[in-house]
Amino acid sequence: MSNYCAVLSIAGSDPSGGAGIQADLKTFAAHGCYGTCVITSLTAQNTTGVQGVHGIPPSFVGQQIRSVLDDINVKAMKTGMLFDGATASEVASILRAYQVQGKLPPIVCDPVCVSTSGHVLLQSDALEVLAKDLFPLTALITPNKSEAELLLSSITRSSFKISSLEDMLTAAETLASQCATAVLIKGGHIISSAGHLKDVTEKHLHLEVVSHNLYDENMQILHVADTRRAKNPEVVVDLLYQPGHAPIVFAKPRIDSTSTHGTGCTLSAAIACGIAQGFSLKDAVAEGIQYTYFGIITAEPIGSGYGPLNHLHSITPTVISKRTPSNLYPFTYYLIEQTKSHWKEYVQHDFVKQLGQGTLAKEKFVHFIVQDYHYLKYYTRSYGLLVAKSSTFPAIQSATKIIMDVLHEIQTHRTFCETFGVTREDLETAPEATQTTAYGAYILNIGLQGDAPKLIMALMACLLGYGEVGLWLKKEAALPNSWVVLDGNPYKQWIEDYSGEVYQSAVQTGLDTLEKLAIHELPSSNKLKEWLEIWLRCTQLERGFWDIAMDLRW
Amino acid sequence: MSNYCAVLSIAGSDPSGGAGIQADLKTFAAHGCYGTCVITSLTAQNTTGVQGVHGIPPSFVGQQIRSVLDDINVKAMKTGMLFDGATASEVASILRAYQVQGKLPPIVCDPVCVSTSGHVLLQSDALEVLAKDLFPLTALITPNKSEAELLLSSITRSSFKISSLEDMLTAAETLASQCATAVLIKGGHIISSAGHLKDVTEKHLHLEVVSHNLYDENMQILHVADTRRAKNPEVVVDLLYQPGHAPIVFAKPRIDSTSTHGTGCTLSAAIACGIAQGFSLKDAVAEGIQYTYFGIITAEPIGSGYGPLNHLHSITPTVISKRTPSNLYPFTYYLIEQTKSHWKEYVQHDFVKQLGQGTLAKEKFVHFIVQDYHYLKYYTRSYGLLVAKSSTFPAIQSATKIIMDVLHEIQTHRTFCETFGVTREDLETAPEATQTTAYGAYILNIGLQGDAPKLIMALMACLLGYGEVGLWLKKEAALPNSWVVLDGNPYKQWIEDYSGEVYQSAVQTGLDTLEKLAIHELPSSNKLKEWLEIWLRCTQLERGFWDIAMDLRW
Repeated sequence: MSNYCAVLSIAGSDPSGGAGIQADLKTFAAHGCYGTCVITSLTAQNTTGVQGVHGIPPSFVGQQIRSVLDDINVKAMKTGMLFDGATASEVASILRAYQVQGKLPPIVCDPVCVSTSGHVLLQSDALEVLAKDLFPLTALITPNKSEAELLLSSITRSSFKISSLEDMLTAAETLASQCATAVLIKGGHIISSAGHLKDVTEKHLHLEVVSHNLYDENMQILHVADTRRAKNPEVVVDLLYQPGHAPIVFAKPRIDSTSTHGTGCTLSAAIACGIAQGFSLKDAVAEGIQYTYFGIITAEPIGSGYGPLNHLHSITPTVISKRTPSNLYPFTYYLIEQTKSHWKEYVQHDFVKQLGQGTLAKEKFVHFIVQDYHYLKYYTRSYGLLVAKSSTFPAIQSATKIIMDVLHEIQTHRTFCETFGVTREDLETAPEATQTTAYGAYILNIGLQGDAPKLIMALMACLLGYGEVGLWLKKEAALPNSWVVLDGNPYKQWIEDYSGEVYQSAVQTGLDTLEKLAIHELPSSNKLKEWLEIWLRCTQLERGFWDIAMDLRW
Repeated sequence: MSNYCAVLSIAGSDPSGGAGIQADLKTFAAHGCYGTCVITSLTAQNTTGVQGVHGIPPSFVGQQIRSVLDDINVKAMKTGMLFDGATASEVASILRAYQVQGKLPPIVCDPVCVSTSGHVLLQSDALEVLAKDLFPLTALITPNKSEAELLLSSITRSSFKISSLEDMLTAAETLASQCATAVLIKGGHIISSAGHLKDVTEKHLHLEVVSHNLYDENMQILHVADTRRAKNPEVVVDLLYQPGHAPIVFAKPRIDSTSTHGTGCTLSAAIACGIAQGFSLKDAVAEGIQYTYFGIITAEPIGSGYGPLNHLHSITPTVISKRTPSNLYPFTYYLIEQTKSHWKEYVQHDFVKQLGQGTLAKEKFVHFIVQDYHYLKYYTRSYGLLVAKSSTFPAIQSATKIIMDVLHEIQTHRTFCETFGVTREDLETAPEATQTTAYGAYILNIGLQGDAPKLIMALMACLLGYGEVGLWLKKEAALPNSWVVLDGNPYKQWIEDYSGEVYQSAVQTGLDTLEKLAIHELPSSNKLKEWLEIWLRCTQLERGFWDIAMDLRW
């Protein structure tokens, strides 16, 4: 789903936000679509009713349509309240001109006539214009029961009443053939039962039934557990009729709710999104019905009358910003930024500073190297665990490569120690400091408890922190009259190792691993909190590791 | 963050969707706020410019405001383009009336004068009205450089130019004291460098600096790795001046982008959301700046001119619908619905049907029980692994309880087997079928590889499926002339065990565990796919388990 699937609504404005272009823009956003909208009329309304209407000159409606369609690559559109015959005429004639040029996107037309609160929203002269001029340009029209009755009465010039699923079938077929388009009749006011639905579909064998949130024959555990739902719920049906296809009945449990202001706007907007995103009409309608249904059942009361749906039920806040060329490391940035002071205590530790000055006492460095030698055994074992937790050969390879790298680093440690008069045997038999056990066993514990991403979180403070230390010392050393001394510094090699190409290339791999992990996992805020705690804990354990070298504690 | 934090925008309409109430509604949605909007004027515009403007009678603007504020509990609001002096006057006087009644929410005023494309959006008679009547009602005004210059020139009746951070400081102080409000001056057109910023802040020690996405001193690894970012990037500063507080400078890297249409609308709308959600002014501004910054850097081109921001960067599609009283089991419903045919092959297996009829051959049942006996050893061990992966005592307790329950179930198996002439020794020494090894070892493998949620996914098909089988057989048995026979059925006890209270209460716990897990983890679509695969695999392995009993294969 791209954010840049543009959708257009041509409709009225509801300042209270539940219907009209407001509902449409929210629905577009909730579907990840880019929303545009042309305003046909303004209302002053809220959940209790419509307090005023202000029409817009049809020519200015037309000008808005041209501003949008001439500049933006609209993939689908919907029309809602068109106010009066003149506006409907203007809209139809402009859209026809785009059709002639082959530039008209698919249109879902919601023939809004009356608001949920009972206010007449379409002047009567417009009905005929809709049917004659606009419908033939559309991919789908979505009347509710009353609108279908009004339209059919106007077209057939005789009264038409819909009171059953079978009436809906007749109405849809008639409308579709008269108006050369597909028809979705919304049966919100026509209540059925699962039993009746079964009878009708058995009689009309060509009917396809798609059910949403009705407990199926193999869902006894849910049916029994869900004590709040009526055991034989009333069923609401919508009927999709596409010329040349079997009619489809969409069935869902009836909901008792006053949060229904803007239901029709929302459904047609959602269907337009589905079409823009390349779904078939059937799938777009199914998704739209599902979206609208969840909008109603997750709504909380707003205003004192018929409140709006919850348009935002289908989205969740993103916690880590998207990775872009100008924002390559959002996740790592977040980790460091959130633990700033701890991170600084680790990477700018006194141990590091004295090492840069070349003044670090030899026994402190040896103590550190000896403990690091023990630590690296835990560290390689943890990467072994990561290999075992991997799902792909590249993941297995990359974890294994780090084990190989560390085995090489171990060799450096041995050589270093020899320089400082510590034999291989001293190294192997030196007691392990509590801090070393705590850190090593902590990582293995996270590895036992969690999945690969969690284990990776525990491995990163070490990899990235030493990279930061190396680069920092190298950068400082390059300044004039620097406090960092390289020439004659007994730890020069150490600084060059960690700022050098080999180690820094491992750091780069680590950074990319972290960023890809955040993109793949899209952590929830709970998950991110867990990860951040692990990162912080390891940052503190790293700092403590240098503390013991400075204090020479075991 | 509640979806029901209502926010109001009073502004113009941009049909192309990048600015005006369209940008505001998108920003409100992206912040999880409930958006309402009052329209002051319509434009016909797109990314290339403004093609036309249509004003709305000020009295109808007023009527819209009353419709919203009289019905909806608005927590914060913003004003944008107010079109002309008459409209600005009407808006100010109505808002003052609400203030007198103590019913005016905090207002962020974006004094829109000129569009990004250079079109004058506010008639000149309105400037004075803004400064005199509207600003004193607001919590914050957010002029950019040109707007601050226009306003200051109008207030002080002498020309005022802003070309540095220090000018911004003077301008903000003057505006704040003249207009009795806090001021955020947007310095998008005033470029600084990190060095200059440091100089100014050293001279003005009372200045606080908040930086966004600038690499800090301990971020050498990012600074070095991010080869695409200039090593000494230009810095853009915004200045917040609140009377009685130290001024705050917000600094961020300058971005080279043409996706800036609607930046001002977006920022003020985002700040209003922050205020509505209870943030301090400083935090609301910081968040708003961050949100707008990411909107620009994540934008993709739309239209042929100055394109819109990406307003949707801060939201992600929710994959499992929210749990509500009328939708208690959305996650379990999803799992079963998505694997419908496999689930049916499992829970309505021939083995189950023959068991219900009482016609199942004794040796088939024994074969099943013997293999189930072996399987349950893997199953309990897997719950042991789940104990080891748990983070809380309640989680440890609930997994341990299942081990205890299964140890009891084992006893039932032994008794059953004795009834059928299979001794305890036969049971222990019977060879393990390949299917049993596959299923048992699969669960342990998932447990080794993943975290607790992943392991739980592997344990659920067994728990829930047997519950479904028990309830189904019991429900069928209750129908008149049922094919399920309980009286005299050698497997009656088995049916009663799995449909009985003890087992069904474990099923209920399982259902709740699954739903809570989905709420806690908010799985991404990748994660959900992983989980669904595990659920499906186990459903198939369960079905295979009954296949081998029917075929008597090892």
